[in-house]
Amino acid sequence: MEDIFIDKIKEPKVKDVIFIEGLPGVGNVGKLAAEHLIDELKAKKFAEIYSKFFPPQVLVDDNGIIKMVNNELYFAKHNKTLKHDLIFLIGDYQGLTPEGQYDLSIKMLEMISDYGIKMIITLGGYGLGRMVDKPRVLGAVTESRMIKDMKKHGIVFQRGEPGSGIVGASGLLLGLGKIQNVDGVCLMGETSGYFADPKSAQEVLISLTKILDIKIDFSELEQKASQIDKITSQIRDIEPPKAKKSKDELHYIG
Amino acid sequence: MEDIFIDKIKEPKVKDVIFIEGLPGVGNVGKLAAEHLIDELKAKKFAEIYSKFFPPQVLVDDNGIIKMVNNELYFAKHNKTLKHDLIFLIGDYQGLTPEGQYDLSIKMLEMISDYGIKMIITLGGYGLGRMVDKPRVLGAVTESRMIKDMKKHGIVFQRGEPGSGIVGASGLLLGLGKIQNVDGVCLMGETSGYFADPKSAQEVLISLTKILDIKIDFSELEQKASQIDKITSQIRDIEPPKAKKSKDELHYIG
Amino acid sequence: MEDIFIDKIKEPKVKDVIFIEGLPGVGNVGKLAAEHLIDELKAKKFAEIYSKFFPPQVLVDDNGIIKMVNNELYFAKHNKTLKHDLIFLIGDYQGLTPEGQYDLSIKMLEMISDYGIKMIITLGGYGLGRMVDKPRVLGAVTESRMIKDMKKHGIVFQRGEPGSGIVGASGLLLGLGKIQNVDGVCLMGETSGYFADPKSAQEVLISLTKILDIKIDFSELEQKASQIDKITSQIRDIEPPKAKKSKDELHYIG
Amino acid sequence: MEDIFIDKIKEPKVKDVIFIEGLPGVGNVGKLAAEHLIDELKAKKFAEIYSKFFPPQVLVDDNGIIKMVNNELYFAKHNKTLKHDLIFLIGDYQGLTPEGQYDLSIKMLEMISDYGIKMIITLGGYGLGRMVDKPRVLGAVTESRMIKDMKKHGIVFQRGEPGSGIVGASGLLLGLGKIQNVDGVCLMGETSGYFADPKSAQEVLISLTKILDIKIDFSELEQKASQIDKITSQIRDIEPPKAKKSKDELHYIG
Repeated sequence: MEDIFIDKIKEPKVKDVIFIEGLPGVGNVGKLAAEHLIDELKAKKFAEIYSKFFPPQVLVDDNGIIKMVNNELYFAKHNKTLKHDLIFLIGDYQGLTPEGQYDLSIKMLEMISDYGIKMIITLGGYGLGRMVDKPRVLGAVTESRMIKDMKKHGIVFQRGEPGSGIVGASGLLLGLGKIQNVDGVCLMGETSGYFADPKSAQEVLISLTKILDIKIDFSELEQKASQIDKITSQIRDIEPPKAKKSKDELHYIG
Repeated sequence: MEDIFIDKIKEPKVKDVIFIEGLPGVGNVGKLAAEHLIDELKAKKFAEIYSKFFPPQVLVDDNGIIKMVNNELYFAKHNKTLKHDLIFLIGDYQGLTPEGQYDLSIKMLEMISDYGIKMIITLGGYGLGRMVDKPRVLGAVTESRMIKDMKKHGIVFQRGEPGSGIVGASGLLLGLGKIQNVDGVCLMGETSGYFADPKSAQEVLISLTKILDIKIDFSELEQKASQIDKITSQIRDIEPPKAKKSKDELHYIG
Repeated sequence: MEDIFIDKIKEPKVKDVIFIEGLPGVGNVGKLAAEHLIDELKAKKFAEIYSKFFPPQVLVDDNGIIKMVNNELYFAKHNKTLKHDLIFLIGDYQGLTPEGQYDLSIKMLEMISDYGIKMIITLGGYGLGRMVDKPRVLGAVTESRMIKDMKKHGIVFQRGEPGSGIVGASGLLLGLGKIQNVDGVCLMGETSGYFADPKSAQEVLISLTKILDIKIDFSELEQKASQIDKITSQIRDIEPPKAKKSKDELHYIG
Repeated sequence: MEDIFIDKIKEPKVKDVIFIEGLPGVGNVGKLAAEHLIDELKAKKFAEIYSKFFPPQVLVDDNGIIKMVNNELYFAKHNKTLKHDLIFLIGDYQGLTPEGQYDLSIKMLEMISDYGIKMIITLGGYGLGRMVDKPRVLGAVTESRMIKDMKKHGIVFQRGEPGSGIVGASGLLLGLGKIQNVDGVCLMGETSGYFADPKSAQEVLISLTKILDIKIDFSELEQKASQIDKITSQIRDIEPPKAKKSKDELHYIG
């Protein structure tokens, strides 16, 4: 086995694809969003990626069946309602080391380039370290001419955010794409960062579906979000207030 | 020397082997179990594995003789009472890095594949973080059709355990085997994880010998277990109770 | 992509260059100094260096445009006032690992050697862990015969400093150059190490311009320095004294 | 530059050498001992080893002259008083990573093997975590038949020590030598581990000179030791006793 081993299950007949990445990250926003869209579009798996850059472990499902840690590629062909061929990258983990991150992103781009890439859209969370009632979707692009369009789809471009850049596959795929003159955008849903955040994922998906000009059903994500809401409100009820706060403080925090 | 160097001492005449892994891990359960079975079956060492992925050190025995850190392969041929050819993998350490773990597991499987592998059985501990009176043996398999058989041998399949997957050689060997369509099972003995646990190792061995359909003597493991029992009960006697606990609490803990 | 990928934008017509390094480091002294000189001399970018040894991320500018993390090479040709051809190395990051540091420095030297290197000057900060009113510029050289000249330019050679050696590109480029008999000097501006220090950078530049025998304008650096001065004096005003200090103590600290 | 680059200054006319390693380690015992013997025997440097596995830095001497971090090989030819050809390995650092440690040790052995190796002697410290009045010299060997001889030279073989094995070049060189059937011994001087320990180094050298059957002058090491003694006794005087200790406790500690 090489450093990265691609097990191609089938050869998708796609071209000029929009490549959508949703690997695990802050609040698992990108992963939740991409997986939901894959389900809604009934996208098909066509490749499994194994690598020495992933953690040396297997996952065990609820029935006790093991599965190597991997990344997976799905595709959805254009049709009456879907205007573009799509390829999705999702998975259990990102590469563990900087070199691994680079090698995996380079390998993915190389492979997808064979079909022609029209655009790269990476999905992620933007951790705020505090609860967020109405998560916005922040954007970052490879070319300034893209911003106007993205703003139309409700994506926010705010001076100085994200200040620390975009770490991992969501950043690297765009950066490597830019060197090859492929347009790219990263959609980052605001999230506390404390738990998996389906509400933020939904906001990201709303923007993404506007870019793709499709309509999908969000009920499953909404259900997950309301479950999380219940849990967090229960936690708030259980947790006694540590100290009474003055109105000013509350205002500042809120 | 390459990254992994195999010093083959002899060429075992085995085929369609059951490959049993017992490298160090939680509670050293797998190591204790595999070493005991090697002793009982008088299995013979046929290869030593040295690697840059092991710690850069030598061990010193009680007489002051040094020994390079390594892994070792043993074999036992089938006979009147043993129905299968067996190969054992034991050792001082697992690979230090993720890449090292992958490379070592891949190399081992490659090498053993030359003899034909009927099944992979990996042995390990499942750390609970609390004392365990009667350790159960949890299982995870590569194929769902194996579960029924394993349950007959007393192996427990419990929804959601191990939740974090199986880390290291015990997981990787199964996962890599599965990709090559080799059946595999991991036997995990419950253990506190605080010290080497021969009692848990014995429970794992009881299940393993049922799978192999052999009978062995456990007296040496039982002796080790009773020594550990003495030490831990002494510790409990010395340690003063931190706070009186209500019956409910004790029930919950027990 | 190889471990290090050089995107050469143009081929500079330079020879017998003085190679000046100003990568990020303590107080960003070297980076601030080199970038200021690049601006003042209107040096031109001729190469971008991408590498798996940099962090796996992209930066996002104030407009939301992403940029791969990289290093960059600039050149300035000699003219009436500039006596030497110069090449500058600046960038977002240094290599993350020791191997990465070595590989990047070796690659840079190899590439610049094609033009002929007359001298290597590396710029950095020397962290004192306390506020510095008048930062001195410490020096270290590859050959003892260079010291007399450097002292003339106000560079201080003080027994036992820097005691811990010079870590990173500022050290490696000199060391690797020395093996190839290229003269080199490291200019280290004293700095607290607590924040980016334009005042220290200015002192380094004053020495550097004396070595290069040029005159440049420092107003922009001075402006930055006065901004920092304001902030730090404000912090001092806000922060209440933790405990009254005796004159002796103050003398010792001051 | 490869991972390890050897700059051979001259070709020593030696054969069947005794190879003595004294790289930095606990209490720098091995380094102090080897460097003292090199001085006493007027051994000559014949090679410098540079490597990406060393820290990416340069050292700066008291005059401000930089030097790449490296390892060095010295040799001493046999003569009237010296019965064997000797090769010494000393240096600023050991390899930073496990792989680096393996690669460096393998490379050194390969290179020295060209001259024929009669025996490998590695020198180190054995950290006790407390002050030692009369440091003993512990031994570990590759073959049990060597123990009797070593004991004659005052080297102590004590059951269970060193319990954690021998980490780094002092261990690896012996282990790798053993695989190639080269006899080896490690001499470990007891030391607190809190500072460079010339007294322990002297004890190691006393044993080593008995093995080599030579006599050397120790006055320089003794001088260093008495300097350290002065400093540590001053520290003891300055430091106020934290709590009065009962005689029993003192006995236990002493």
